[in-house]
Amino acid sequence: MHRLLIKNAKALVGTFPQGKQVMSGADMARLPMIEDGWLQAEDGRITAMGPMSAFAGIDDWSDLTVIDATGRYVLPGWCDPHTHTVFAAPREEEFVNRIKGLSYQEIAARGGGIINSAMKLRAMSEDALFAQAKGRLDEMMRRGTVAVEIKSGYGLTVESELKMLRVAKRLKEALPLQVKTTLLAAHALPPEFKDDRNGYVDMICDTLLPQVAAERLADFVDVFCETNYFTVAEMERVLAAGRKHGLPGKLHVNQFTSIGGIQAAIAHHAISVDHLEVLADADFEALRIAHSQRSVASDGIEVIPTLLPSCSFFLRIPYAPARRLIDSGLPVALASDHNPGSTPSGNLNLVLSLACIQLRMLPEEAITALTLNAASAMRLGSELGGLTVGKRASLIITKEAPSLAYLPYAFGTDHIDTVLIDGKPVRSGAALQ
Amino acid sequence: MHRLLIKNAKALVGTFPQGKQVMSGADMARLPMIEDGWLQAEDGRITAMGPMSAFAGIDDWSDLTVIDATGRYVLPGWCDPHTHTVFAAPREEEFVNRIKGLSYQEIAARGGGIINSAMKLRAMSEDALFAQAKGRLDEMMRRGTVAVEIKSGYGLTVESELKMLRVAKRLKEALPLQVKTTLLAAHALPPEFKDDRNGYVDMICDTLLPQVAAERLADFVDVFCETNYFTVAEMERVLAAGRKHGLPGKLHVNQFTSIGGIQAAIAHHAISVDHLEVLADADFEALRIAHSQRSVASDGIEVIPTLLPSCSFFLRIPYAPARRLIDSGLPVALASDHNPGSTPSGNLNLVLSLACIQLRMLPEEAITALTLNAASAMRLGSELGGLTVGKRASLIITKEAPSLAYLPYAFGTDHIDTVLIDGKPVRSGAALQ
Repeated sequence: MHRLLIKNAKALVGTFPQGKQVMSGADMARLPMIEDGWLQAEDGRITAMGPMSAFAGIDDWSDLTVIDATGRYVLPGWCDPHTHTVFAAPREEEFVNRIKGLSYQEIAARGGGIINSAMKLRAMSEDALFAQAKGRLDEMMRRGTVAVEIKSGYGLTVESELKMLRVAKRLKEALPLQVKTTLLAAHALPPEFKDDRNGYVDMICDTLLPQVAAERLADFVDVFCETNYFTVAEMERVLAAGRKHGLPGKLHVNQFTSIGGIQAAIAHHAISVDHLEVLADADFEALRIAHSQRSVASDGIEVIPTLLPSCSFFLRIPYAPARRLIDSGLPVALASDHNPGSTPSGNLNLVLSLACIQLRMLPEEAITALTLNAASAMRLGSELGGLTVGKRASLIITKEAPSLAYLPYAFGTDHIDTVLIDGKPVRSGAALQ
Repeated sequence: MHRLLIKNAKALVGTFPQGKQVMSGADMARLPMIEDGWLQAEDGRITAMGPMSAFAGIDDWSDLTVIDATGRYVLPGWCDPHTHTVFAAPREEEFVNRIKGLSYQEIAARGGGIINSAMKLRAMSEDALFAQAKGRLDEMMRRGTVAVEIKSGYGLTVESELKMLRVAKRLKEALPLQVKTTLLAAHALPPEFKDDRNGYVDMICDTLLPQVAAERLADFVDVFCETNYFTVAEMERVLAAGRKHGLPGKLHVNQFTSIGGIQAAIAHHAISVDHLEVLADADFEALRIAHSQRSVASDGIEVIPTLLPSCSFFLRIPYAPARRLIDSGLPVALASDHNPGSTPSGNLNLVLSLACIQLRMLPEEAITALTLNAASAMRLGSELGGLTVGKRASLIITKEAPSLAYLPYAFGTDHIDTVLIDGKPVRSGAALQ
């Protein structure tokens, strides 16, 4: 049995109560913490914690790693519930073309966009995809990410979507961080089906989904529900098929237009609605009603609005109205959206800064959104997202910092000293020396 | 004699011709480079370079460090011609108050803003200021910064302004990077002079400047020329006094309002006009005329528009019109503006991304702006800012990267493997192993 003791932490941050799966509204700013704290883990799980004033000392020093975290914060590791981090190649040439003034439509007409990624991915071997994605995830772990959701959606054929999900499965087995996977075959209409939309959705529901479910390759289904991509009716077909196989929805909705995707997602018991850059009053109201009804029903299901500020930053599109969501009493999670087209960055520390600088979230709200709520937005809320007895000891130990608010404030600065996943270091800084 | 050989570089980037001090307009996108190149340095200076196809091999292996840069770019180190990086304390509490909705005026009324920094700095010892700033500059060097301009302006008394500049002088002596210093006593009107504006400007011109010049504590003078700060007439008094002592101007102008600061700066032969978030047509015209006249006169003086996108990002104010400046044929430099109030980040890699994503600069333009033009915006253009024989071997070696555009595109990712200053590593990555 390997044991870990962290002592003298400036604060243990995010000591959420056991059983608490999500923080909503004003509670998001009430980030629980223990100042001048200690924390103990055994075999990768948190077993005890408290203030140093109540620290009883150590009886048994065998197989024990002791970390003196004087001046440092200890935080739950970041959770990233929305990424497309398995892809074949970056798309920086499209970035340069956009600087030169080309529109998305023009870039797509030149073979850019999701279809560009699909053509490259189809041509790439599983091993090469795995090696590339592993490099990205290694970097993300060093930046404090301890759990990640990975979507398919650059295959757009049965074979290539399965290939992507198999790569994600290999990543889950090869890396210490938690990986959840999502079938996003309905990401764009592939050229082969350009005159047969129904045929493509049929293929997803009747061929791909049963096979994905049989091989247990995905935890969730996703649809890019958006003008010029997939309609609400098409999304509902995929969601219904997903539920039949036990795969709930995590959905791309309201990135550019409000077309009813949120209401349909709620009706189908989706676990998260993601993007939300464009929200109509009716969308807020639908989310508010869903939230209040589920709180009453206590059925454990909560649809979590999941915001992706790095995407807004990179595309220069509006930021999601985080303030109004939280002020309406709703929960908010944050994610990177890491992908080669709209968000070539998996750095959740920058997401923390963007959340505070651009979304006007308080530091405590943003930390809640990147930990407990982000974990729950991929159904890992009982395992991760808090310094809570029983949860995985997947932690960030910061460099010395004057305050918690300093972390988002001093943007573009590397605040992380050490990252542990299940009690084991994936990045070792001065705190571990 | 210590020698350095870098070979097999994917490209040597920024091989500007000898004698070239600044690139303007369309030339900024014509970033010279040598693909598959080698570069040699002796005693910290670049002595030779070329393509591998013309590499003659090594005769003398004594005291030679060889770096195999296969797959990596070699770039001139970043130059940062506008910072306030000597300060007493971060101001994250103001950041949180702004998220909560307080205006600048309200924050200033509560003792925030520049005066907040001044009160803390006056109370801090020279040694403590030095230690803090050294920590920040160490981090900046690891991020590729090889030269930095540091302003005073948080003292606002003779004694404390001198203290800041002495700290900057000690930093120059203690650290390998190049440091230039600027007297910015006219940063804000200190409370002691709130009813005696002229008295404060008198003090700067008649007492402080002569002493700064006598002790050789500054290379330049600066004034925050802005509505509610210092008028154009006040700036002109300081500029005239500076010139008398041989200190040219580097000026804060047009951050919030266009009040004629640019025209006055040009008339006084300032070397840079910085910020420029708000530019009227007349300002463009004045810059354009100044640029064309100086090109004709060939007197070596060029006023360089210097943009600070991290400040716009953090304050959510408009970004400077980089595109229109470049498209008007003008040169542009970039800087971090590192300071505790409006830009708590000294990371020039993020500035590179912001320049491309938000200012719509091409990657080549942004690299030119962060190297040659930035060096010249602090009168270091003959020493730094290019891979040019005779210049300092202050270089960045990147991690393996698919293209140059990938560096700004994959924002928030650490692309730097190794940083050399005057041929010696300040950060050692895999390329040096």
